[in-house]
Amino acid sequence: MSATIQTPDWVKDAVFYQIFPDRFASSARVEKPSNLEPWTAPPTVYGFKGGDLLGVVEHLDYLVDLGIKAIYFNPIFQSASNHRYHTHDYYRVDPILGGNEALRELLDAAHARQIRVVLDGVFNHASRGFFQFNHLLECGAQSPYLDWFTVKRFPLNAYEPNAKPNYGAWWNLPALPEFNTANPQVREFIFNVATYWIAFGIDGWRLDVPYEIDDDEFWREFRRRVRNANPDAYIVGEIWHESERWLRGDQFDAVMNYIQTRAAIAFFGAETLSSLKPGGGYDVLQPLAAGDFAAEIERMLALYDWEITTAQMNLLDSHDTPRFVTMVNGDTSALKLAMLFQLTMPGAPTIYYGDEVGLAGGHDPECRGGMPWDQAQWDMDLHAYVRAAVQVRHAYPALRRGSYHTRLAAETSYAFERIVGGDRIMVAFNTAQTPATLRIPLEQSARDARLVLGDGGSVSANLEGDTLVIQAAPRSGVVVTLG
Amino acid sequence: MSATIQTPDWVKDAVFYQIFPDRFASSARVEKPSNLEPWTAPPTVYGFKGGDLLGVVEHLDYLVDLGIKAIYFNPIFQSASNHRYHTHDYYRVDPILGGNEALRELLDAAHARQIRVVLDGVFNHASRGFFQFNHLLECGAQSPYLDWFTVKRFPLNAYEPNAKPNYGAWWNLPALPEFNTANPQVREFIFNVATYWIAFGIDGWRLDVPYEIDDDEFWREFRRRVRNANPDAYIVGEIWHESERWLRGDQFDAVMNYIQTRAAIAFFGAETLSSLKPGGGYDVLQPLAAGDFAAEIERMLALYDWEITTAQMNLLDSHDTPRFVTMVNGDTSALKLAMLFQLTMPGAPTIYYGDEVGLAGGHDPECRGGMPWDQAQWDMDLHAYVRAAVQVRHAYPALRRGSYHTRLAAETSYAFERIVGGDRIMVAFNTAQTPATLRIPLEQSARDARLVLGDGGSVSANLEGDTLVIQAAPRSGVVVTLG
Repeated sequence: MSATIQTPDWVKDAVFYQIFPDRFASSARVEKPSNLEPWTAPPTVYGFKGGDLLGVVEHLDYLVDLGIKAIYFNPIFQSASNHRYHTHDYYRVDPILGGNEALRELLDAAHARQIRVVLDGVFNHASRGFFQFNHLLECGAQSPYLDWFTVKRFPLNAYEPNAKPNYGAWWNLPALPEFNTANPQVREFIFNVATYWIAFGIDGWRLDVPYEIDDDEFWREFRRRVRNANPDAYIVGEIWHESERWLRGDQFDAVMNYIQTRAAIAFFGAETLSSLKPGGGYDVLQPLAAGDFAAEIERMLALYDWEITTAQMNLLDSHDTPRFVTMVNGDTSALKLAMLFQLTMPGAPTIYYGDEVGLAGGHDPECRGGMPWDQAQWDMDLHAYVRAAVQVRHAYPALRRGSYHTRLAAETSYAFERIVGGDRIMVAFNTAQTPATLRIPLEQSARDARLVLGDGGSVSANLEGDTLVIQAAPRSGVVVTLG
Repeated sequence: MSATIQTPDWVKDAVFYQIFPDRFASSARVEKPSNLEPWTAPPTVYGFKGGDLLGVVEHLDYLVDLGIKAIYFNPIFQSASNHRYHTHDYYRVDPILGGNEALRELLDAAHARQIRVVLDGVFNHASRGFFQFNHLLECGAQSPYLDWFTVKRFPLNAYEPNAKPNYGAWWNLPALPEFNTANPQVREFIFNVATYWIAFGIDGWRLDVPYEIDDDEFWREFRRRVRNANPDAYIVGEIWHESERWLRGDQFDAVMNYIQTRAAIAFFGAETLSSLKPGGGYDVLQPLAAGDFAAEIERMLALYDWEITTAQMNLLDSHDTPRFVTMVNGDTSALKLAMLFQLTMPGAPTIYYGDEVGLAGGHDPECRGGMPWDQAQWDMDLHAYVRAAVQVRHAYPALRRGSYHTRLAAETSYAFERIVGGDRIMVAFNTAQTPATLRIPLEQSARDARLVLGDGGSVSANLEGDTLVIQAAPRSGVVVTLG
């Protein structure tokens, strides 16, 4: 455990955009193999649509306009799967994505726009085509790479239908052979991949299922190597539950904060919750009222050091969950409330591509649809709202670095204050279907209250002594600066 | 067909050395995975011994001392097979060989010693782990790479034991899926690989089973691309039989001249022939007497344009055949005679690594043993003889570029003259177990005959009018300059 926990400053100021590379944008500059699915067809388990990294380059200005400061990419390395979690070659960007040259162009273009790039590091398992595993398939027990994986019996039954693999595999899925990370050569291989791409110019790693490499010293060394290559690199783990073990400053900077995700769906979508499971093995969500929601948020904020909390990767959904709007049965008002919530909370908000224009989709593969670039298909109101909320976050340091204080939590009314230095911001939500008057007692007096974000003309914020009185439209969020 | 046939001049002056990379030399500078076979153990079908390219670098001066001017390497790209004909990645030198950096060092070190480097191009088939084929295994009919191979049915049965593959595969071997070279993207892929490594610095391609890509225009375009990248690049096909189709100047510069190989084994090893087949699908060899041998050599020399003939890749054996010494049941005298023969014939002689020190071995995998570096295991007399014969070839341009004329061919006596400009050289063989007097009538008078290579002190060469009289030791070859 480090004496002082340090997480990258830039993350605290970032708004992330998560891109599933096969589905965001396709450039005419990347030649594609022939057998692609139509962009607008429902996504399938095995089909490719042909998105690529130059397509991202060509839409960077869209992200700039939205206020995005960082991209988290789902895996981009050569892989025989549309999600690319089955890595075939860790040193090669997938040719369908444009290869290493496309990543070079993307990094240069993104950095020129002050956008950071975080890649998905899939280090627990490789794939059946990965060289050292393929070696075992081809050469059996005589392969020099015998100790790169954990083999129970030869010959390997990797492609035998319905067979439980006779080698270590993630969730016993034969397509995902697990590395033997007890082998020093395997550790070195992974560390070298990690630092190679950091040196190439990426700004951090999102670590896929890192708890499966159940070895704190592995991740400590991983952190040392990566931070040595770039002291500003961000390391964020995919851990769906409480993660103290990894967040003491010596392993990760953050985790994907699905705790907040679940709470936000259950509160903002309380009336419209679908019966879909929220992902990560969790059961169907139950509605939360404001009191329980605020308690859960306070519990969450107390889990880790504040330095960690302000660098958390917050998110409403991802490639691993139904989209938020689908989790709430199409209730766009819930999405807007939740979007404002994550954009005003400690930790880096993350927008899953397409959420901002209303792209819907249930569990994988549905949540990985092609990004619509025909604006006729966009929810323009939603897009404008998200864009405005992002701007508010960037405008007020208190929203990024300020302390958090619940100020109101009752049924459908919820408000919290963020404070840094002399700057104070109140964020309030009326989740009811009717207008509400929120009376929020202030702990410290204020002379001035100014509404900086509301929803519709019926909203106002005024001081009545040491009470902030907000007239809130139905299902609306409000941001008020206190002077 | 080109109006003028042009083959690289350097090939006509080269003596090649063929290296099977896993078996020639291992450097301490290349870190290896753990499970290697002992260097001196009999080679196996699947095991690796851990030879590498830096090991070659560290033994280049051995090759310089032997008089070698070019190396033909069996495949060096990443492959899950010890022979590396199952290519996994055409753009990556195998990590066990030291990776691309090792090839860089090797090329620089070899070129500094005026040694050229020819690689093995395996373009008919890839492997089951090759990315685009693995894609079909993983994604089935939805893979974008559907048309990179020829699939009869999905799912592919690539790893089903004893199944005939339901996709195009070389010799129906499931490990060797054949490219669909009718696909322009596949053609472009192969051409780009070819020119990438030429630009990297290699001096040519030996083409594995090129007749399987039954498409003259494919190879014409291959030649145009490669020669455009390096006008001096050598293109030599692995074709075991008569090859007029490919040797008209528009496709290959040469083929591996197994026609000469077979004749040399049958003549020089007439008395000691083993019952092994000589490879390439040919039946057991029958002994040849000098008359039939000379007729076969003359037939062979008339097959192609002289520009091709002087650039042929001549060889006594290879990774695909039993070693010569094993084909003649250990009769080293036959090996010495045949070695002198190829070193005095038109076309580039090739020494398969280890032949020069007496390394033996039958059919694959036996012919791929570890090179002995303990000189106590060498046949020092053989090594000195080969070295001397190589020096003679380098000393006399007539041996490299001179015309060929049979001057004697009867039973165990055989002689031919090589002439270029005013330089004349007679090469004579007594393959009998007893001393012989060879009386060779000269077509043109000579004033002087000088013995430049013989075997033992009992040898002499003298002119008697227009007859060259050679007293030849049993089973010996003689090289005489005529002035």
